[in-house]
Amino acid sequence: MAAARTVLAVLCDQQRPPDMQRIETLAEVRYADAASLPAAMRGAEALLVWDFLSTAVADAWPAADRLRWMHIASAGVDRLLFPELVDSSVVVTNSRGVFDRPIAEYVLGLILAIAKDLGTTLGLQRQRTWRHRETRCVDGEHALVVGTGSIGRATGRLLRAAGMTVTAVGRTARSQDPDFGAVHASEDLDELIPAADYVIVTAPLTDSTRGMLDAHAFAGMKSSAWLVNVGRGAIVVEADLLHALESGQIGGAALDVFDEEPLPPDHPLWALPNVVVSPHMSGDVVGWLRALVALFTENFDRWQAGEPLRNVVDKSAGFVATGCSSAHE
Amino acid sequence: MAAARTVLAVLCDQQRPPDMQRIETLAEVRYADAASLPAAMRGAEALLVWDFLSTAVADAWPAADRLRWMHIASAGVDRLLFPELVDSSVVVTNSRGVFDRPIAEYVLGLILAIAKDLGTTLGLQRQRTWRHRETRCVDGEHALVVGTGSIGRATGRLLRAAGMTVTAVGRTARSQDPDFGAVHASEDLDELIPAADYVIVTAPLTDSTRGMLDAHAFAGMKSSAWLVNVGRGAIVVEADLLHALESGQIGGAALDVFDEEPLPPDHPLWALPNVVVSPHMSGDVVGWLRALVALFTENFDRWQAGEPLRNVVDKSAGFVATGCSSAHE
Repeated sequence: MAAARTVLAVLCDQQRPPDMQRIETLAEVRYADAASLPAAMRGAEALLVWDFLSTAVADAWPAADRLRWMHIASAGVDRLLFPELVDSSVVVTNSRGVFDRPIAEYVLGLILAIAKDLGTTLGLQRQRTWRHRETRCVDGEHALVVGTGSIGRATGRLLRAAGMTVTAVGRTARSQDPDFGAVHASEDLDELIPAADYVIVTAPLTDSTRGMLDAHAFAGMKSSAWLVNVGRGAIVVEADLLHALESGQIGGAALDVFDEEPLPPDHPLWALPNVVVSPHMSGDVVGWLRALVALFTENFDRWQAGEPLRNVVDKSAGFVATGCSSAHE
Repeated sequence: MAAARTVLAVLCDQQRPPDMQRIETLAEVRYADAASLPAAMRGAEALLVWDFLSTAVADAWPAADRLRWMHIASAGVDRLLFPELVDSSVVVTNSRGVFDRPIAEYVLGLILAIAKDLGTTLGLQRQRTWRHRETRCVDGEHALVVGTGSIGRATGRLLRAAGMTVTAVGRTARSQDPDFGAVHASEDLDELIPAADYVIVTAPLTDSTRGMLDAHAFAGMKSSAWLVNVGRGAIVVEADLLHALESGQIGGAALDVFDEEPLPPDHPLWALPNVVVSPHMSGDVVGWLRALVALFTENFDRWQAGEPLRNVVDKSAGFVATGCSSAHE
């Protein structure tokens, strides 16, 4: 009798992941949507959460009778982690790394667009109006990066390469850091914020970061400084941000993430001057879907071979604390 | 009898240069507009062309009876050089250096805005429309910089720092170059253009560069590639560019300079999709006027002391060929 093939469940919407042919020869792959996920999870040892916006995994959890490993096609795991999963022995891995360089470029692009007043230029162009203005140099301007994961690090490196000075805030202070020089603790945010021309949020959403950027933080910012959020909407207290923007307390905000996504059509952020709203796309460059599958495939091979997996999430912390760990411990 | 004070004429519009107090103690400074320039130039040994868009110097030339040195508050001298000045012994210096870093940042900002599709994002925001798209990474994309003066060099260095590969085209080929590795000759443009994702024009307008980017050049470009012009409008054959844009032969164009400036309100470039029109502002950051006067003041002191001037223009070439030369030779 042949050994039973590994069962892999894949939670996806209409669009299945590309490049799955090889894995389909190695495992029984069950593609499921939210409704069919419980059936697909029965007997499955692994789950690929391709539809990373879905919250269907928690609902299907009672059907997870053999699950050992779950991989999510995103960097943030805030939508995925629910108490039963955190308390279980199921190993969770994420897509750390895939979004680093794209998001770093996106942040630098936003900063340069702000410094060079590109939004005004495009607005004047629509009116066929030639109006010369003076703009800002980012050379020597100061960025405060909130979040010292791989996205924050790639962002810090690129901003430095572009001539900016960069300070970082992480969970714990470190005097020596390969990317940032020094990393400051979250408690020091108040002291660091007044010097920043740009406050860049790249942190994961955890209990520690939820609501971290609030009225108090905005009150400390320069009136010319901009907030750039490519992390998660709930790290910023949206009502406080709206007040800071409307009262001119801060220069502006470039936001790629929101409390509610898609941002509702009647939301005031759409129409505020000095606000850039983008649809949670900062990390999604041409080829990102294949890159996500390539990373999953590498982990699948490691898992099959009993080797340490990449990007194992510390489920109680809510992010990847180390590069490698084993799902077979 | 006291020695006669040096006479400095300053061609300016309504707005006089800032920070002139010290020079006013050292020289008799005559501020003039186009109409009063001939009278101001009679007896003047030096002329500061502060209104660098003006062509009044040629008209006032017959009055230049004692002129030895002329400094212009811009990098390009194409508007200034007229045959009688070129043939004269009057030394011309320019503002090389002041615009290097600002323009390099501006070019990188445009490239990232193009790669990240920021114009579409801002357009969708006005419609309160959430529409996720995939964008491009500039990491590994290829920029061809046309012009190896100080602006082209600063641009090349910054694009490289941001992860792009960069090739340069200059007057003459050089196998070893501190900023670009190799510099290719203008004659090789045809061979280099097909590999470029961005063709960046930073060159001065001279007899050699006029009309350099023409139908033939656009025909060689990738259909996804963008032209970025921060040099001079006449380096590009505008009719050919319009055809290339309208026929989809190239991806788009970001233009800061034009044949006619301000760009006339009825000009078709204002309204073409995939065109960014900006009002000749790429180098003009907060503080640029003071930086221009600081450079002029340094040269004024050198001139008074009989020392070599900075940024002496090779009048027959149309740009600064070396860093220093003497106005007293």
